[in-house]
Amino acid sequence: MQMEYALYYWPSIQGRGEFVRLALEEAGAAYVDVARQKKGMDALMAAMDASATPPFAPPFLKADELMIAQTANILLFLGARHGLAPRAEAGRLWAHQLQLTIADFINEVHDTHHPVGVSLYYEDQKKEAKRRSAGFIAERIPKFLGYFEQVLQNNDKRGGFAVGARLSYVDLSLFQVMEGLRYAFPKAMARMVPRYPALIAVHGMVAERPNIAAYLNSKRRIAFNEEGIFRHYPELDG
Amino acid sequence: MQMEYALYYWPSIQGRGEFVRLALEEAGAAYVDVARQKKGMDALMAAMDASATPPFAPPFLKADELMIAQTANILLFLGARHGLAPRAEAGRLWAHQLQLTIADFINEVHDTHHPVGVSLYYEDQKKEAKRRSAGFIAERIPKFLGYFEQVLQNNDKRGGFAVGARLSYVDLSLFQVMEGLRYAFPKAMARMVPRYPALIAVHGMVAERPNIAAYLNSKRRIAFNEEGIFRHYPELDG
Repeated sequence: MQMEYALYYWPSIQGRGEFVRLALEEAGAAYVDVARQKKGMDALMAAMDASATPPFAPPFLKADELMIAQTANILLFLGARHGLAPRAEAGRLWAHQLQLTIADFINEVHDTHHPVGVSLYYEDQKKEAKRRSAGFIAERIPKFLGYFEQVLQNNDKRGGFAVGARLSYVDLSLFQVMEGLRYAFPKAMARMVPRYPALIAVHGMVAERPNIAAYLNSKRRIAFNEEGIFRHYPELDG
Repeated sequence: MQMEYALYYWPSIQGRGEFVRLALEEAGAAYVDVARQKKGMDALMAAMDASATPPFAPPFLKADELMIAQTANILLFLGARHGLAPRAEAGRLWAHQLQLTIADFINEVHDTHHPVGVSLYYEDQKKEAKRRSAGFIAERIPKFLGYFEQVLQNNDKRGGFAVGARLSYVDLSLFQVMEGLRYAFPKAMARMVPRYPALIAVHGMVAERPNIAAYLNSKRRIAFNEEGIFRHYPELDG
């Protein structure tokens, strides 16, 4: 019998939880998105306090008796369980390295609208956000996307995947990165995206995976909004 | 025969590489700190370009034919090889989860002096750095240190370790976090540190491990300075 997972994440945003949702959906795994159930936020808070391995923050995943936090760590676990990462040590570490680099990029995306403080409102750091976003668009997007483009181009195995000859959680995450950047910075991305043909291809390939396509068309996929990590503020879109 | 590792990191700072150095030193592993050798920076740059699994940034570690980047990923690898993390899945994931939370904290430390842009000088974002540091000291240090204190207190195994009944790379990293915070924010930390007795104890315990004590007294330990992650700018020390 397949176990049912419980995913704990904020109920109204894609955020970091989305990288986990995409892996669960692609795997066809049974899971409950706890905080989106009735009284779900109470359940999330209670689970955080009760765990012997408490998370610092959501997302976290309950898998039988395990409670696992940190997005990349959850994907490390799910990748091994569901064939979403290479089995051998070298490939497993390489996939995880790429995921951690995506995590760094995501942190920088978040900082574009919250450069001065996590707990301040966007409106109280708008001027600084503009300055940070300008540098993000001019330097950081090209540096990160250029890196991932190169990784894809360098992979001499067939299929256009990031790692080896099979789909991994890295491809799913790169899809989400491209989706998010195009939502947050549509003008800047329209200009830049032609430079990254392999990333465009991965994005399209993932979107057409049957399980992912079904997910994206379902109510389980929350729309992007201005509470998440990828936020569309036209004044930041260089 | 034990393999010799090659660590690639910036030669003049502790930075993220220090978390790897501490693990290698505690393990008594043979390693070359490549960029600190003659023509070492050329070697670092050449290795970055030549790798089949290229790092986005240093640190990265060469171990036989493996080239591993991302600090927490390197520690995942070294932890398994040198008994610096639990072997069983649950403990291994828990240690890694804590390390990734430390990585998040370290990113926020970096942002205290670089809130507006990675590539701008500190002098060009001093005002924003003051604002960000104030929130960091008031809210983020207590939140992160409070979390790790709780983790230590909740561990009912003997020895005062973060994970189980043995030293892990998490303890080494918590030592470095406490060292760095006391260097960067001496006034604020003097005020706050008594709230974290278990963290003080881990710091002291790690400092007295024979291999670590020898390392800290050697020339291999680079002094903190204002090029690294933990920087002492008196104007930011609330």
